[in-house]
Parts: sequence; structure tokens; C-alpha cells
Amino acid sequence: MTISARRANTTEPAASRRRAARPSSRAAEDAPASHALDPDAAGQDRPAQAALGRNSDFVQSLDRGLAVIRAFGPDQERLSLSEVARATGLTRAATRRFLLTLVQLGYVRSDGREFSLRPRVLELGYAYLSGLALPEIAAPHLEELVAKVRESSSISVLDGDHIVYVARVPTKRIMTVAISVGTRFPAYATSMGRVLLAAMSPENLELYLATANLDALTGRTVTDREALRAVIGDVARQGYALVDQELEEGLRAIAVPIHGKGGAVTAAINLSAHASRVTMMAMRTDLLPALQETAGRIEADLRSQGAG
Amino acid sequence: MTISARRANTTEPAASRRRAARPSSRAAEDAPASHALDPDAAGQDRPAQAALGRNSDFVQSLDRGLAVIRAFGPDQERLSLSEVARATGLTRAATRRFLLTLVQLGYVRSDGREFSLRPRVLELGYAYLSGLALPEIAAPHLEELVAKVRESSSISVLDGDHIVYVARVPTKRIMTVAISVGTRFPAYATSMGRVLLAAMSPENLELYLATANLDALTGRTVTDREALRAVIGDVARQGYALVDQELEEGLRAIAVPIHGKGGAVTAAINLSAHASRVTMMAMRTDLLPALQETAGRIEADLRSQGAG
Repeated sequence: MTISARRANTTEPAASRRRAARPSSRAAEDAPASHALDPDAAGQDRPAQAALGRNSDFVQSLDRGLAVIRAFGPDQERLSLSEVARATGLTRAATRRFLLTLVQLGYVRSDGREFSLRPRVLELGYAYLSGLALPEIAAPHLEELVAKVRESSSISVLDGDHIVYVARVPTKRIMTVAISVGTRFPAYATSMGRVLLAAMSPENLELYLATANLDALTGRTVTDREALRAVIGDVARQGYALVDQELEEGLRAIAVPIHGKGGAVTAAINLSAHASRVTMMAMRTDLLPALQETAGRIEADLRSQGAG
Repeated sequence: MTISARRANTTEPAASRRRAARPSSRAAEDAPASHALDPDAAGQDRPAQAALGRNSDFVQSLDRGLAVIRAFGPDQERLSLSEVARATGLTRAATRRFLLTLVQLGYVRSDGREFSLRPRVLELGYAYLSGLALPEIAAPHLEELVAKVRESSSISVLDGDHIVYVARVPTKRIMTVAISVGTRFPAYATSMGRVLLAAMSPENLELYLATANLDALTGRTVTDREALRAVIGDVARQGYALVDQELEEGLRAIAVPIHGKGGAVTAAINLSAHASRVTMMAMRTDLLPALQETAGRIEADLRSQGAG
């Protein structure tokens, strides 16, 4: 069985993940403005980015080198020089220089013909995760929640117009691991994304609604901007978001906010379940109370430990 | 309570992790030869690296940009331009260009005075992890093992002279998460490292013994090259490695190899426990049989799924 086939058996929406993760990587190169929507960074990064443009301060080699790393992925573990060149849009000569540099730095392995990433690339993401207090504080509470309700739970933060998993505990019946930390999904189609959008300032939300790409990921995805604004308004009033198969067919999820010690929403926590197993009613009556209780415990720990 | 204080309460050897992780980052810049010891890559990367040297194919800007990302970490979440310059050894002007480029690419956030990493950096490690079948296949077996023996379990691969966690399931009583995926430790002082060293070809093992830095991480660490060769020989004969507080005071761990479908050792799996709670005898009599059983199940799945 292939990895894709195995993933298709889980509630991890593999197809959407691939759809979602790849274009967002490209966005980093092509449209710097598109990730200026982070509520924490908005009004801080944006002027800097606007002023920067593609000027003499921009180190193109770094941009290209990171694109070479991102060329590898789930269905691209081993790539030839030509394949990397095709994926990045670089010339073969430039691709070769970047690959050989990455080999020399220990990030890429080569057998002469094909290239693959080495575990050292994990250091780069580790530099970010190890600086976060939330995943560590939340871990035992996530474990407890999943043991109790027997559905998978995740915590995400907003990064531009995507959510990014920073912690995840799968149920026993789901074969997914820490792999999923770092997974990105478009905010509008996910329960955690809607919770985070509902916590935005009105200005940032309008900017998001005006600029986000609202693609139909399933037949049920809300893609109309007015309809989405109304849905997000409901989430703000209710204090939770319930999404029924808008990210992936067969997947339901419910999310609530996690407030940092200052009271601002810093992350969202969800429970996801197979639509065939858990009704919409059960999501609200069985899962929501347990989810809210867990969020409350995490918030209490964040306050008492001075983090978040 | 600080993150460091919280970590000190777990069996996660925080101090060693920091000691271990940082210098290895530096090694990537200064001594490319030091990570040519990977048994998979040896004889493949090394000639390429030797031929490369610091020649015209080496893209220095990529090297420096990655060093800027690695400057951030557990105790360095928010850094000023000067602090990044100090950590990387770059000039202020160069540091500024790299930071602004990373801001523009969405990897770094700036509030004008201080810089911090954004979740997008997780994409880089994700590109590696998502290409690995092992963590996904091993996950349910790790969960089962940890639920049964109530000690933390990890899986590592060798990368140069370090082991790197690719999967980890902590016990309930330990507050550690996916954070730990990507953590690096020097191979010689860890149970998983010794299992992986024991599986090396004699030539690669001799090269490792001749070149590795064998620092005393605790008063018990085996640092004598002859003694280490003997210990590794014992591991090869016994089929497991048991390490008593050589990586961190108070931490014991036992590891066995995981063989890929071709029969070669591709990874190691361990159980770690507090020395105050589990005797050396109990490590062997209680934990080892469960660990071996789990390794066998993972190997069976790797074979049946054509991976590894």
C-alpha cells in the first residue's frame, strides 16, 4: 500500500493537505503580500514588506535555496536535478549549485543521480517549535482529551491566510504522527481557521475576505465572501466553529479558541471525526463540552506559567 | 515557571539537548566533513563533498540564510538584529539583508526592533518528514507500547554523528510533544545511537571512532575510544543497547534496531525512564521484551507495506 493510500484511510485529509501545502509554499515566493494577514504581525510586517519590494536588500539566493528544499515532499522524496529544476523554475545550472550547497551543508543527500532531504532539515522547524510554550503546555491536556473522547485533536495558529498545526494527538485508530505538525490548511475551510478569523480585528478580517482565495475544496465549501462573513460572525457569537466536510469529504471538525494570558486569542483547538461515525448533533452535544473544558485547562496553565 | 524549569522535571534531557543541538548546527557551516559519516550516504556524499570544497558551486548566501534561521531557538525566540549578527558571525549589514529577506518570504516576523520565526519554517522540516514512511507506520505501535509500559518511546535515524528523533510518544507524566521530533543527540552517548553505530560497516565505524567528538556529558559517559568500540561490539552481539545516565543524569534508556524490508538497520527504537524509578535489571527484564516485540511489529508492517 502506498503512503497516499494509507492516508486516505484516515481522517487526515491527505488530498487537501497536498493541495493546500504546496501552493502556499509558492505564495511565499510570488506574493509576499498574501501572508501579511497574520493578526499579530499585521500593521508591523506589512509596511516593512511594502517598503522592501524586490529591492537590493532581497537575497534571491536564499529564496531560491529554500524553494529547492520545499521541492521535496510526500510524493517527491527522491528527485533528479531536472525534477528539482522543473519544480522550482530554476535553470539546471542554478539548481545544481543549490543542490550541491545543500549536500555540503548536510541538508540533502545525493546518490549521484537522485537527491533527497536529510534529517538535518528538521533543525529549521525545530528552531520555531522549541521557542513556543503552547505545544508543551497543551500536550498533556490534548492527550487526556483524546483518550477520553477517542477522536483526534489538534492545535493551530494562524500564519497569513493559512492555519498551521503546532500540536496534534491522533486517536489510536488513525495512523498519523508528528508528521502533521507544520501541516497547513486554508483558514476559511477549517474549524480552527474560522475560530482564528473570528478573533481578527474587523479591519484585518475585511482584508482577509477581500484577498483570500476561496476555492471549493469539496462540494460543501463555503466560497462566497458574504456567506463566509456571516459564518464567521456566527462563530464569533457562538464561541465555536463546526465545519461539515468543507475541507475534505467525510471529515467533520469542531474548534474553540485558546486565549493567551493577556486575553487575546492566540490559537485554536479542535476535535475531528469521520462524518460516518459522528453526527453533527453529537459533535455539539458530546465533543464540544469536552473541547471547551480542555481549552479552559490549557488557558489556566498558560496563565499560571506566564506564557501565551 | 520557565520552559527550562518545566523541562527539567521531565525525562527529556533538556540540558543535553541544548548542548547537543546547537554545536551540530554550527558544524554544518564550519566542518562539512563532520556529517559525511551517515552510513547511507557514506561513500556517496563524501567524494562529492571532498571534490566540492568551498568552490564556485557553493552558494554562500544560502548557507548564511539558513544560519540566521538556526540562530533562533529555545532560549532565543526573539532576537534583535545585533543578537542574530552575534550568533551567526555575520556583519550587521548582511544580517539585516537576510532577516528582511526572511520577513518578506514569510519565515520571520519583525516588530521593528526584534525578530522571531513564523510557523512557515515548519514547512521545511515537513518536506522531510512527510517523505518518510517509517514514522507513520510506527506511530500506532509506539502508542501501544507507551500505553503498555508507561515509559516514553522514540524512533531515531542516524545523521552524521548524531541521532535525530523522527517519532516520539511521551508518557502522560512527561510534558513533551512533537517538539522533540528533530531533536539531535550525539550518537555515542545514547542507546539508539549505539544500536545504529553497531549496524555500521567496520570501515564507517572506524571512521566514526577516529573522528567523533566524545565529550563527557555526565560523569558516566564513555569517552574513551577503545572502551566505546568494546561497548558497540557488545551491542552488536546482544542486539540491544542499554545506557545508564551517560546522556543526562537520572536518565536510562534501552534501544533495539528496526530493520527495513531489505534487512538493513534503518532506524532504532528506544524506551527511556527515570533512573530513580526503573532499575537496570527492570530495563532488561520488563522493558526489553516489550520493546523487541514492538520493533518486530513495525518491521512486519514495513515489509508488508513495501516501505523502509
